[in-house]
Amino acid sequence: MKKILVFGLGSMGYGIAQTLHRSGYKVYGQDKNPVQQKRFVEGGGFDTDIPFQDLQAVIIVVLNEKQTREIIFGQNGISDKLMKNTLIMVCTTVSPDFAKEMASSCNDKGLLYLDAPISGGSKKSAEGKLSYMISGSQKAFEVAKPILDCTSETVFEFGEHVGSGSAMKAVNQMLAGVHIAAMAEAITFGITQGIDPKRFLEVISKCAGTSWMLENRAPHIIDNDYSPKSSINIWPKDLGIVLDIAKNSNFSAPLTAAALQQFISAAGSGLGQEDDAAVAKIYARNAGIKLPQN
Amino acid sequence: MKKILVFGLGSMGYGIAQTLHRSGYKVYGQDKNPVQQKRFVEGGGFDTDIPFQDLQAVIIVVLNEKQTREIIFGQNGISDKLMKNTLIMVCTTVSPDFAKEMASSCNDKGLLYLDAPISGGSKKSAEGKLSYMISGSQKAFEVAKPILDCTSETVFEFGEHVGSGSAMKAVNQMLAGVHIAAMAEAITFGITQGIDPKRFLEVISKCAGTSWMLENRAPHIIDNDYSPKSSINIWPKDLGIVLDIAKNSNFSAPLTAAALQQFISAAGSGLGQEDDAAVAKIYARNAGIKLPQN
Repeated sequence: MKKILVFGLGSMGYGIAQTLHRSGYKVYGQDKNPVQQKRFVEGGGFDTDIPFQDLQAVIIVVLNEKQTREIIFGQNGISDKLMKNTLIMVCTTVSPDFAKEMASSCNDKGLLYLDAPISGGSKKSAEGKLSYMISGSQKAFEVAKPILDCTSETVFEFGEHVGSGSAMKAVNQMLAGVHIAAMAEAITFGITQGIDPKRFLEVISKCAGTSWMLENRAPHIIDNDYSPKSSINIWPKDLGIVLDIAKNSNFSAPLTAAALQQFISAAGSGLGQEDDAAVAKIYARNAGIKLPQN
Repeated sequence: MKKILVFGLGSMGYGIAQTLHRSGYKVYGQDKNPVQQKRFVEGGGFDTDIPFQDLQAVIIVVLNEKQTREIIFGQNGISDKLMKNTLIMVCTTVSPDFAKEMASSCNDKGLLYLDAPISGGSKKSAEGKLSYMISGSQKAFEVAKPILDCTSETVFEFGEHVGSGSAMKAVNQMLAGVHIAAMAEAITFGITQGIDPKRFLEVISKCAGTSWMLENRAPHIIDNDYSPKSSINIWPKDLGIVLDIAKNSNFSAPLTAAALQQFISAAGSGLGQEDDAAVAKIYARNAGIKLPQN
């Protein structure tokens, strides 16, 4: 039985772990949050006696670069425990430069590294239908292939240069974040003009103003359902990464910067754990209007 | 034979006029631009001996509120020439307050008024497949119905209160303008990260970052084709209207404001007559990168 270790058992990592479990892997997992750790073990996962010398791959799906670095090269890091040629597949949203640095350090230790950011949300993760944007050596890709096959709907390959996958992910996050904020700006602007949010979605989804994010998130506002499918807290982090990369390339990104400020205001207003559609609450509060209640 | 007069024979007005002509109307037309006037007459339209007392409807598809007001109530305005109960159908993008004022003044003269902003672009206009967002009296709607039937794919009705159609149009334009600028921001950001624009479109159109505008406009950049399907000059005007309405409602719209600045920079850089995808040239110039050439 092939063994895999997953770090980070939040909505995305848990989905990947469960899909691998269903596909016949023996899945080990680690999460800082005991609630998520417990859910994982109750779902058939293992969290003790991790056979580091016998792992096919380690998948890292944590919050940020700092946690990722700690897991690989920290005091109790995995890089000193794994067999040579074990695959480390990093799905965390990181900067291309960080991915390059990690890959280089892993290669120095004889480990394979795949830059493998993901897109698709918790539902697609649970169904094994993620999109991956991968870059890395042919050898890393070959080891990853069966894992990618069972957890993905689409795999976009960006060649051997680690970092290209993360660059594409940054571009996608830029658009996704801007489009969520734009949806919130427009649905609340509509309310000030007497346009009911339900009617807004009905009309806009058939017009040139629509976006994937608008059609996906506007229903949360209409239903007054801010249980986190993807939380506000993701965006100060992800748009922050995007703008760091942009700044390092002397690239001015005014819409992304404006969107980031709205998500930061949402996080600062105590909405960090709510669904990211809750950024509409910032617009509503600023304009003195009410969002749908039910 | 039913007679109609169209003011404004640009891409949208010309499409409406041609569709009505094909459907058996006798179509009169007026445009300030002699090139557009000539095209209209060569296409079977009439521009002399306008039978004001025998018109079914006047359709106004001009650039802005000022031109619209001039046509209806200016020195040589139509409001003094038309029979009572003639329909004035205004497709120009205007503020809801302007629409209300025009409707009220028209009603005072015994004329019917339909607030009828359009969406869909020049191609859909030529095919008789526009989207209308209409508001106005039942009587105005009844007179307009055969015209709407032959020039539209979808008619969204917003009730008897004139201005609601224009409010919905403003919301759609807010999103459309923001999404075009966001596409330009992301495709050029991608170039700084080594992502080819063709690959950008291929990947993003299958990811959560996509939008209707992205899929429609990114090909213009990839093909280096800035012949105006819809021009840069539309956006300082339309997003200006959106932000005026927003300001009057104490509504803060930071993404729209950021997008407007990019379109103003494009207009100021001499790109006003180019396709609105040319806003990407501002990003490219600011970042010192090259867009696709062919």
